[in-house]
Amino acid sequence: MSEYIEYDQDGVSVGRVEKRIFTFADPPGEMVLESGAKLGPVTIAYETCGELNREKNNAVLICHALSGDAHVAGYHDKDDPKPGWWDIMVGPGKGIDTDRYFVICSNILGSCIGSTGPCSYNPETIEPYALDFPVVTIGDMVSAQKALINHLGIPMLHAVIGGSIGGMQVLEWCVRYPEMVKSAIPLASTTRHSALAIAFNEVARQAIMADPNWNNGKYYDGPKPALGLAVARMIGHITYLSDDSMRLKFGRRRQDKSDFSFKFDADFQVESYLRHQGKKFVERFDANSFLYITKAADYFDLGREHGDGSDIDALSKTRAKFLVISFTSDWLYPTYQSRGIVKALKKNGLDVSFCEIEARWGHDAFLLPNERMTTLIKGFLAHAAD
Amino acid sequence: MSEYIEYDQDGVSVGRVEKRIFTFADPPGEMVLESGAKLGPVTIAYETCGELNREKNNAVLICHALSGDAHVAGYHDKDDPKPGWWDIMVGPGKGIDTDRYFVICSNILGSCIGSTGPCSYNPETIEPYALDFPVVTIGDMVSAQKALINHLGIPMLHAVIGGSIGGMQVLEWCVRYPEMVKSAIPLASTTRHSALAIAFNEVARQAIMADPNWNNGKYYDGPKPALGLAVARMIGHITYLSDDSMRLKFGRRRQDKSDFSFKFDADFQVESYLRHQGKKFVERFDANSFLYITKAADYFDLGREHGDGSDIDALSKTRAKFLVISFTSDWLYPTYQSRGIVKALKKNGLDVSFCEIEARWGHDAFLLPNERMTTLIKGFLAHAAD
Repeated sequence: MSEYIEYDQDGVSVGRVEKRIFTFADPPGEMVLESGAKLGPVTIAYETCGELNREKNNAVLICHALSGDAHVAGYHDKDDPKPGWWDIMVGPGKGIDTDRYFVICSNILGSCIGSTGPCSYNPETIEPYALDFPVVTIGDMVSAQKALINHLGIPMLHAVIGGSIGGMQVLEWCVRYPEMVKSAIPLASTTRHSALAIAFNEVARQAIMADPNWNNGKYYDGPKPALGLAVARMIGHITYLSDDSMRLKFGRRRQDKSDFSFKFDADFQVESYLRHQGKKFVERFDANSFLYITKAADYFDLGREHGDGSDIDALSKTRAKFLVISFTSDWLYPTYQSRGIVKALKKNGLDVSFCEIEARWGHDAFLLPNERMTTLIKGFLAHAAD
Repeated sequence: MSEYIEYDQDGVSVGRVEKRIFTFADPPGEMVLESGAKLGPVTIAYETCGELNREKNNAVLICHALSGDAHVAGYHDKDDPKPGWWDIMVGPGKGIDTDRYFVICSNILGSCIGSTGPCSYNPETIEPYALDFPVVTIGDMVSAQKALINHLGIPMLHAVIGGSIGGMQVLEWCVRYPEMVKSAIPLASTTRHSALAIAFNEVARQAIMADPNWNNGKYYDGPKPALGLAVARMIGHITYLSDDSMRLKFGRRRQDKSDFSFKFDADFQVESYLRHQGKKFVERFDANSFLYITKAADYFDLGREHGDGSDIDALSKTRAKFLVISFTSDWLYPTYQSRGIVKALKKNGLDVSFCEIEARWGHDAFLLPNERMTTLIKGFLAHAAD
């Protein structure tokens, strides 16, 4: 999500990676969504790194968060300005070692970076869906990923891994397709959003919908709701950081060292940083996708969907081995929520390791280099098939 | 700020309270602001409860926060739907006992509820100031309050009390006019905003400025930037609560018990609550005032202004007795910031009591009934003149 910390890429990148797409139409030509709505055909953009072995038992599926994409590691070509979003973790010899594992990452259903979403063309109207796109759930996203994994001929995933909303997909995979998941790593995640997390998402959605250019979702042939989406992103961005990380990174440092502007300019570096993040995001992300994906995250409730209100009952369906990771300064999906997952897994007698990693960088910590996180993931994956 | 918890008004209200105004023009007819800009004449709306004694030594000045006003306690008339914003604390026999103290509360400079602010008429153009209103500081607000206190003929205040941005005014009073402050109670406050607090304010300002109706501040003869201001308020509102309080108050309870809407309606009660708060706020508050007051709060830096960067040096100027109060679940102005104030006061050998009150309601806790807070304030005020 955030690229705000400059870091040295350590280790070797996976190198050049191909963009791929897979289009499917479940019988009778459509995917039936959790809402009951039908959608099809569905295109899923994905990328892979490493080689699938002959036994087809070394596949690792990585699930991305809100604004991520299929481009998890490596470069598309030599002009690619930066590698995939989790290049610090995925590559030869890295935490998720592409010399050993066949890594798959696909853009989630409802997004705008290659997979079918509200900005895709509705085959019935030959116009972008906009708000005619049905509201999708985390379950629907996982169901689309399952079609991709079937298409790739993989009977069982060695591991499903993801942080934040990616972690929700991990949990959904485990209970929806238990026969296909050997091990699972949800990072900085939860079985359901707190009222606080819903509140932030709702305000971000309101910021988008308040922009007159949003035009009830129909902006694809006109000006985009850029200001609204920028505000939405800024709100999100604050929640991915922490009081501590913002103090370290910005404190009260001013743009103009000499004095305040006594105007409504960006006086503080943190203001200018947020404005910049907002602007950058608008160039690469679709406002409607932001609405759909945050709504899916707010709806997600593992216990409600799969356990009649109980996470324990929901997780009784899985057979996977778990590594659950949380971060001390993550106040969006705080450690107590990860502990809840661990507790529910243990009640089911499942094999689960848990680590709360000391990290200052808030919710975003899972995207940043952390030796402890890398070691844990590497070690866990090496023994996940034992 | 928030009235979201229904509570029984305990104790007797101060009863009917008059709205008053005081207009002044410092020689030569204008107030010189910290920015160097001049402003005048300046009107300050204020209310008083209780009686000033013959010795004029029982006056208590209460400073309000961002969206507050002069109406601190009691009712304006029998049709007033609710009492002043701190009626739980101010009244006969209450924490700030109006049988003993002469309580004064004035609307801050830059606001829109009676005092001069961006929606006031600029005498030069006979139009609302809008962005021609100069950026004011917490120091300017206090300086205007000082003119009011002089006008009321009060040589020394028994106490200056305020929470949040009101607490900043309390600290400013203590170092700016040490000879006029006998005792001081900053609640849930800070000597300077953290990067996190600035970030939230900046995003809220961006939400207002992104609304095309804002029109660079010139909206007084057209539609108001209602959607932008509503989003700004919603952002603020979340920061006044806490994870815990939101879980207790809303959790994941749905508006429609049966199921989700699978639309972008308010599915959760917390969403509907926030939308309601946003709408309500727009009816009573001016968007430009929101910009000016949040900017003043972000600029506030006690040490920088008065101590060459040191809070200790700044607070060496005061002679007041202090009661500093923070709340466990306040993550906007966390306890460590109040401890910083206490430490700086102690370094100066000043008489200071400190209490971190166990409270779930986040930053807003100072506005809600709390027996411990009431007892502490009452006891402190009784001995502040000793």
